[in-house]
Amino acid sequence: MTSRTDSQAAAPNRTTDRLEAFSDAVLAIAITLPVVELHAPRSDDGDLAAGYLRLAPDYAAYGISVILIGLYWAHSHFTGKLLRKTDHGYNLLSVGFLAAVSITPFPARPLLEHLVSDAESKTAAIVYLGVAAAPATWWFLRWIYATARSLTDPRLTDAYLNRITIKYGITAASYWAAFAVAFWDWGVGLIAAGIVTLTYLVPPARPAFKTDVQSTTALEMADKKRD
Amino acid sequence: MTSRTDSQAAAPNRTTDRLEAFSDAVLAIAITLPVVELHAPRSDDGDLAAGYLRLAPDYAAYGISVILIGLYWAHSHFTGKLLRKTDHGYNLLSVGFLAAVSITPFPARPLLEHLVSDAESKTAAIVYLGVAAAPATWWFLRWIYATARSLTDPRLTDAYLNRITIKYGITAASYWAAFAVAFWDWGVGLIAAGIVTLTYLVPPARPAFKTDVQSTTALEMADKKRD
Amino acid sequence: MTSRTDSQAAAPNRTTDRLEAFSDAVLAIAITLPVVELHAPRSDDGDLAAGYLRLAPDYAAYGISVILIGLYWAHSHFTGKLLRKTDHGYNLLSVGFLAAVSITPFPARPLLEHLVSDAESKTAAIVYLGVAAAPATWWFLRWIYATARSLTDPRLTDAYLNRITIKYGITAASYWAAFAVAFWDWGVGLIAAGIVTLTYLVPPARPAFKTDVQSTTALEMADKKRD
Amino acid sequence: MTSRTDSQAAAPNRTTDRLEAFSDAVLAIAITLPVVELHAPRSDDGDLAAGYLRLAPDYAAYGISVILIGLYWAHSHFTGKLLRKTDHGYNLLSVGFLAAVSITPFPARPLLEHLVSDAESKTAAIVYLGVAAAPATWWFLRWIYATARSLTDPRLTDAYLNRITIKYGITAASYWAAFAVAFWDWGVGLIAAGIVTLTYLVPPARPAFKTDVQSTTALEMADKKRD
Repeated sequence: MTSRTDSQAAAPNRTTDRLEAFSDAVLAIAITLPVVELHAPRSDDGDLAAGYLRLAPDYAAYGISVILIGLYWAHSHFTGKLLRKTDHGYNLLSVGFLAAVSITPFPARPLLEHLVSDAESKTAAIVYLGVAAAPATWWFLRWIYATARSLTDPRLTDAYLNRITIKYGITAASYWAAFAVAFWDWGVGLIAAGIVTLTYLVPPARPAFKTDVQSTTALEMADKKRD
Repeated sequence: MTSRTDSQAAAPNRTTDRLEAFSDAVLAIAITLPVVELHAPRSDDGDLAAGYLRLAPDYAAYGISVILIGLYWAHSHFTGKLLRKTDHGYNLLSVGFLAAVSITPFPARPLLEHLVSDAESKTAAIVYLGVAAAPATWWFLRWIYATARSLTDPRLTDAYLNRITIKYGITAASYWAAFAVAFWDWGVGLIAAGIVTLTYLVPPARPAFKTDVQSTTALEMADKKRD
Repeated sequence: MTSRTDSQAAAPNRTTDRLEAFSDAVLAIAITLPVVELHAPRSDDGDLAAGYLRLAPDYAAYGISVILIGLYWAHSHFTGKLLRKTDHGYNLLSVGFLAAVSITPFPARPLLEHLVSDAESKTAAIVYLGVAAAPATWWFLRWIYATARSLTDPRLTDAYLNRITIKYGITAASYWAAFAVAFWDWGVGLIAAGIVTLTYLVPPARPAFKTDVQSTTALEMADKKRD
Repeated sequence: MTSRTDSQAAAPNRTTDRLEAFSDAVLAIAITLPVVELHAPRSDDGDLAAGYLRLAPDYAAYGISVILIGLYWAHSHFTGKLLRKTDHGYNLLSVGFLAAVSITPFPARPLLEHLVSDAESKTAAIVYLGVAAAPATWWFLRWIYATARSLTDPRLTDAYLNRITIKYGITAASYWAAFAVAFWDWGVGLIAAGIVTLTYLVPPARPAFKTDVQSTTALEMADKKRD
């Protein structure tokens, strides 16, 4: 008991509470901020109904930004549970991820303005897909770092951790593949990236624990951490 | 004890702490963000008092947005108490609700600019009522999901849960009714929606608990969750 | 033990944790949002140094907004400690306070643009003082409500609670007095309001507790609440 | 036991939880807000690719703002661990620091627009370096205050506290030196400030504890505070 507390106090590591709070706050802002880009028609803009309809790409841009960031939030909610602690490197990688995800609403409106095929559609799609691939890449790098530095819950089985690693790796690779494909056919690239994103609507797999360390003490430690 | 902790650790569910924190953060941003739309008159805009007065619809829009979002926050504060845990589906429905409520300030200014009856009043009212009906609908769906998936506190009586379900269902239906009525008489639609909203100024009903499960253990579990 | 937990679970009241979190989030946004109003000079605006200097009233507006909101935050940090619990009414009054304080940066720039006496100075000062008086009034009303509904820590002495009531009442009254004086001499009004604001730089008085209830049990309850 | 709780309850001090939450919220907003300044090209702006490329200084400004604020957050995550409690003065100094760090994105875009040497480069660099020196100064003052008022964890050795004091002092002094140097050679000033900033990528030194007070009780108190 003394040695555990000792090492916890002495190491410049902490439980994930503050990281999760900061992360949630950034994601909350990132998901809400696109509303600022929505400017309701002014009374001197003429026909109000037409003014509202003209903003259709803006609504759709808000919609896809909410879906993308919302799914990241829901899954960060889950992966936070898999970590035992955080450290300086993990925090910095988290800042990178958060900055990358916060910027994803930026190229969404041009994408939707040019969704009906025109001369700029390919550019709009490539830019969007490149920006959307970034947070998936940070997310994957952060997870690799967490496993390499043993920040994960020691009770999780290696098989489970590997499955998560493969899942996040495939996701990042798929986004980059969609980005590459968009140079050849932007529609196919967008559909591919959309499918990858929507697979995250499926709840994450139930964590698998090593049976031998599932002593009462280990469970209580875990419990304490969750409180 | 072991089995409970075990299942809690193994299931991809968590207590509602992080969801509540995320939800509060989004609502805090949504309630504050309309201030960004308020631009004080510049010194080269001429008469300052007239400049401030010209912004009257903006102030009123800020006011009604604060009331609507503030009431949702106060009631989410309360319903959070009724839940025992959250899951992936509930989190995603919460993202939907939060996105819907965040966008309610968007059509508020046009509504108030056209509140004195003119050619655009009906359009402004219909758009506002449609946007305002969305979060109530998400809220109701989320609650239905929570009861169907038994995310609610198991100590609550079925009668109490049903009363809440009916209340939220009536609210969502009333907003849509107000929206429909607005096609016929926009003033009546607005008044109806306003009355529905203001009923939420009344504090929520005191939860009713099953007497048979009110053992010390159950209470302590609940207590632990609240800490 | 059972009865206390019981009543806590049954009443639609909760500890102040979530209210404080929401309040902190709104204040954090309100204090940071004025930065959005600061637009660095563009490269085609001509002389950069002149461009930066032209923004002087904007910097000053940011400064006074930070001071005002920062002091409210620091004192809400303190009064949160005096409360035992919150309820629906207190939450709604808090929303009112937060909305009022969030809007205080709005009339700050015109105030500072017209601080060197000109034709618009009186208007700018009166608007600012009226807007600044609002959060102090909500703050006072919220406190009155908290004492009337016994939301405060029962261990605090009546003398102490009365001293706080008087302090908050005088503050709100002073802001309105400064507002009224500004119709006659806007400079005097501003100086008076500035002095009232800056008295809050002084740390709040140390809470005084009733000696008779300071049993171990009461202390432990309080301790539990703070954790 | 009674005396400790007593003094904790009686003093207008609190654990650092709420300060950390507020601080994290402000930093989360400050790091995300520069996204609002990014406006994707409109469809009537002509060539989309050119429109995106024209925003290069804006992307770079976002990048350096994220790095600067992200590093402050990661280190505030760490220094929060070194404090035992906070008080009114420390809270107000924190507001000063947070306001100073929130404004650092403001002069970033002009800096990057003029990074290729031109007539305005020196002005842009001097303004940026002055603004960047401010949060480092508040950070240092806040730390000095914390040590002077014994807000730090009493178990930390004096040698360790002194090392931190020297580190923060050198950082603040270096930023001001870079600012001063920029009047003579703005490029050298920027590089110096950049190096100082990037040294914070290195994880902070592991806290050193006095061995004699490391009794079980002290550790348990610390543990309790962390929960």
